[in-house]
Amino acid sequence: MKVYLAGPDVFLPDAIEIGRRKVEICARYGLIGLYPLDNVVDVASVGASLTIFKGLEAMMDAADAIIANLTPFRGSGADPGTVYELGYMAGRGKFCLGYSNDPANYADRVRRFTQVTAAKGRLVDADGLTVEDFGQSDNLMLIHALDLHGCGLVTPRQRPDDIWHDLAAFETCARLAADQC
Amino acid sequence: MKVYLAGPDVFLPDAIEIGRRKVEICARYGLIGLYPLDNVVDVASVGASLTIFKGLEAMMDAADAIIANLTPFRGSGADPGTVYELGYMAGRGKFCLGYSNDPANYADRVRRFTQVTAAKGRLVDADGLTVEDFGQSDNLMLIHALDLHGCGLVTPRQRPDDIWHDLAAFETCARLAADQC
Repeated sequence: MKVYLAGPDVFLPDAIEIGRRKVEICARYGLIGLYPLDNVVDVASVGASLTIFKGLEAMMDAADAIIANLTPFRGSGADPGTVYELGYMAGRGKFCLGYSNDPANYADRVRRFTQVTAAKGRLVDADGLTVEDFGQSDNLMLIHALDLHGCGLVTPRQRPDDIWHDLAAFETCARLAADQC
Repeated sequence: MKVYLAGPDVFLPDAIEIGRRKVEICARYGLIGLYPLDNVVDVASVGASLTIFKGLEAMMDAADAIIANLTPFRGSGADPGTVYELGYMAGRGKFCLGYSNDPANYADRVRRFTQVTAAKGRLVDADGLTVEDFGQSDNLMLIHALDLHGCGLVTPRQRPDDIWHDLAAFETCARLAADQC
């Protein structure tokens, strides 16, 4: 089974090393990990971003499943680029798995970034927009996409010290992918 | 043509009224707008979030196209729930349109939330993670998904005073959907 390894890991300073570790873990479970940086593009070249997109889409089309790193990135929720890929794979009928290294629930996490108050039976942020409050760790679309198109979101009991390099939750996903949940 | 109207608009205090206006604009261009709140669920009921998900997925499956409001939401990028839906619709081969009422480029917007510095030819945020710097207004996955699966992202020349209620960019998307770009 070929598994597309989605996540903001590609933005880490040691992105290549993390990819190597993920591919190695996949191999241990009989999976072929496809990591976005396998597809190297000179980011300074003309049209680089479109070339990257086409390469990633081809990689997703070639994969049977996705393991998405949904650890909150630069804000209260998952990385939009990764979430796009999760949606694309769900739409293509592929097997969807994901993990987040931050087990906090979404409403609590939003409180780290903005004032959240209760008004007329709902939570609202400083701009008056409703804050989802289903006790889940991110937007319901991501959570239930995993429930219905693969395996439920994997989170650790406790937030690991290094949320970007701890791969225990990732490894659980690899095991679940190999067992088909 | 049935168009799924995705966006964090559903979190606005006047979410129903915004949906009504969007559906009205669609009708002016001969489109049938499907707005997520048409599908009303008692959010306090048991299993409400899964019921909402199933309703939205069925609505997307029934639609021929999506117009996604990708205006930055609670951070530097688009709402992950909306982006999931854009990915899902692209994966299903539907016609994809989107707009953002914030025309700033992504790297400049990230600077509003965190310190961004240049290091070894790339921009990095306070956590040392690379900041995408292709002069585009969000993650390249969203931008090129629109380019290749529908029409390019629509942005106003200037950020409107009320980014959540100004529907000029939305109306441009409705016109493009009617004309198939």
